[in-house]
Amino acid sequence: MPKQRLLTPGPTEVPEPALLSMARQVTHHRTPEFRALLGEVFANLKYVFATQNDVLILTSSGTGAMEAAVVNLVPQGGKAIVLESGKFAERWRKIAEVFGIEVIRYDVAWGEAFEAETVARLLREHPDAVAVFGTLMETSTGVGHDIEAIGRVVADSQALFVVDGISGAGAMECRTDAWGIDVLVVGSQKALMTPPGLAFMTVSPAAWRQIESIRRPAFYFDLLAYRKALADSDTPYTPAISLVKALAESLRVIRADGIEQVWTRTRVLAQAMRAGLDALGLRLTSARPADGMTAAFIPDGIDGRAFLQRLLDRFGIKLAGGQGPLKGRIFRIAHMGLVDELDILSTLAALEQVLVEFRRDVKLGAGVAAAGKILAESAGFCRPIQEE
Amino acid sequence: MPKQRLLTPGPTEVPEPALLSMARQVTHHRTPEFRALLGEVFANLKYVFATQNDVLILTSSGTGAMEAAVVNLVPQGGKAIVLESGKFAERWRKIAEVFGIEVIRYDVAWGEAFEAETVARLLREHPDAVAVFGTLMETSTGVGHDIEAIGRVVADSQALFVVDGISGAGAMECRTDAWGIDVLVVGSQKALMTPPGLAFMTVSPAAWRQIESIRRPAFYFDLLAYRKALADSDTPYTPAISLVKALAESLRVIRADGIEQVWTRTRVLAQAMRAGLDALGLRLTSARPADGMTAAFIPDGIDGRAFLQRLLDRFGIKLAGGQGPLKGRIFRIAHMGLVDELDILSTLAALEQVLVEFRRDVKLGAGVAAAGKILAESAGFCRPIQEE
Repeated sequence: MPKQRLLTPGPTEVPEPALLSMARQVTHHRTPEFRALLGEVFANLKYVFATQNDVLILTSSGTGAMEAAVVNLVPQGGKAIVLESGKFAERWRKIAEVFGIEVIRYDVAWGEAFEAETVARLLREHPDAVAVFGTLMETSTGVGHDIEAIGRVVADSQALFVVDGISGAGAMECRTDAWGIDVLVVGSQKALMTPPGLAFMTVSPAAWRQIESIRRPAFYFDLLAYRKALADSDTPYTPAISLVKALAESLRVIRADGIEQVWTRTRVLAQAMRAGLDALGLRLTSARPADGMTAAFIPDGIDGRAFLQRLLDRFGIKLAGGQGPLKGRIFRIAHMGLVDELDILSTLAALEQVLVEFRRDVKLGAGVAAAGKILAESAGFCRPIQEE
Repeated sequence: MPKQRLLTPGPTEVPEPALLSMARQVTHHRTPEFRALLGEVFANLKYVFATQNDVLILTSSGTGAMEAAVVNLVPQGGKAIVLESGKFAERWRKIAEVFGIEVIRYDVAWGEAFEAETVARLLREHPDAVAVFGTLMETSTGVGHDIEAIGRVVADSQALFVVDGISGAGAMECRTDAWGIDVLVVGSQKALMTPPGLAFMTVSPAAWRQIESIRRPAFYFDLLAYRKALADSDTPYTPAISLVKALAESLRVIRADGIEQVWTRTRVLAQAMRAGLDALGLRLTSARPADGMTAAFIPDGIDGRAFLQRLLDRFGIKLAGGQGPLKGRIFRIAHMGLVDELDILSTLAALEQVLVEFRRDVKLGAGVAAAGKILAESAGFCRPIQEE
């Protein structure tokens, strides 16, 4: 069996201290020690999400936190604007519809990005919209939406701005407060380098006022219970204790690095990967590629499933395939968490090898060279030369 | 720091193979390997819960699965009978009320048990009740309710029988199918010896028919999505992968032991603990004590918090205290999972020591002797003598 290299845009690899923390015996959660740990985790999550707002920890997948955002902010019969262009943005709409919310859709094709001007127009046409639901990084297409620009136009309206940052936040730049994000939803198994099972939400004062003002069909996801528990640095229901301990370790890794450094490194890695794919003649799926991952088309005539399987069998590289209309047509690779410069170069080298196996006319080393040029120009930024 | 001995009725200690499995690098969940593991887990959960019905795995605390049971079975405006006598039974009612369900309450005092005849009368008075919500082991009081007898009377009605087995199932006897339980809700961090973060539900064919027939205010907890995924031995949203791997290991431990053996051992341990406490003059909280745990009053005049803290500081024994009206007045100890004969004897020895410190008139060894008599009479049942 080859070495395993998990490069999917979630789950991502977990740092060793976090893994080892989970091998320790479980301890009780209603203790001063665990409360202190939760306190540290809450503080570090605020740091990573660049927010002074409350941060909540839910024991659920990211989808659970998306539901929590919808049902706590928009009452039944209320109106919401959903920016829809991929499998995960689609989920905002589906959740809203289940709860009887009137959805104003702003659709763009999978792979396209939203225009802030169009959001502004929709907000003028629907001044009664309670919230705008957007996506930082659409993991199904690799699009990075312009949340900063959209946040500016939402800030000019009465609506709250809710962003699915499940797979992007903590890797690519996301300034929750500066960009006017009222609720940011994040998952544990992406940039935060923790196994799946936890989700996080930031909640602005304006969002809390809305939450206080409506009735909600929610018990487990009733955010007021989470806020009450927060006063004691606690959670309302038994949290996934082992995952919280792993998260604490991974957040220390991010904090030691510095979140601005993480954002910039992610950007450099994404630029390098894109340059490498371009040199190999591989076309990106996304018109506005995200920094946290890259999605690209598998060349016509190659069976997508066989292509990904070969990368796995020969090199142990696990990439994600496509979903929905992109199933079997693309591959997706993360630039998050533990993914580093050499993962980018070696993945490109592996892609070259497999393209040759599939009888494509590829110049060996071309992808590695193009990506390597970007990395060399970044002059050791990703791993600065330590002064003596 | 003393050795740590976690004896709370959740979380419970996790076996070493399960702990170590979580220290391994995370792998992707949409793979044949993980699907095969899930298949094994589903089969072993059915075995442990003594059911042929579908079993679902939710990434949430037990409370999330309680909500899933309520909203998937009883429509808004529908009627449900709730058997209420403790903090966790109370949660059934609170969830039902949030979702606009008419609740018929059968209340008994904390520490008391329900009578099947009263349930039968309520079912006759309310033939339109969609479901009866009960509790196998009320963890706040240590009561083990007579689910078998109640199941018989519910089976004579049109109502579905939903049982919170969060902390009892997998330790004390619970025959899901034989006892007519339509939906059993279980948590990972109790008898199943897995860290918290997963919850399980069994769903009978009759329950599925009801689920198919109603609309529900649920997305993350929409059980039809779980059933659909089940066809591929999958979950609809990213599961807590590391916890599933730990669960697989813990279920192997239970399966190797045999569930009937586990049930009987739990019963013997509970009998021994009760005999020991009786010999020390400590009164049980429960009129019908459960096998999966024991709750007892701390003697009058002793500060409950100081008592539990002393057990922790001197012996590393972590017991749970009381909740609600029992706060500061009782201690609660689990007989689940890894808890064995010697844990019972040594905890009694520790209680004797601490009672002496609190200047109680205790005959040292009396608790150990009384419990030891039960264990000796069980003739090595808990750990049979291996034949050569």
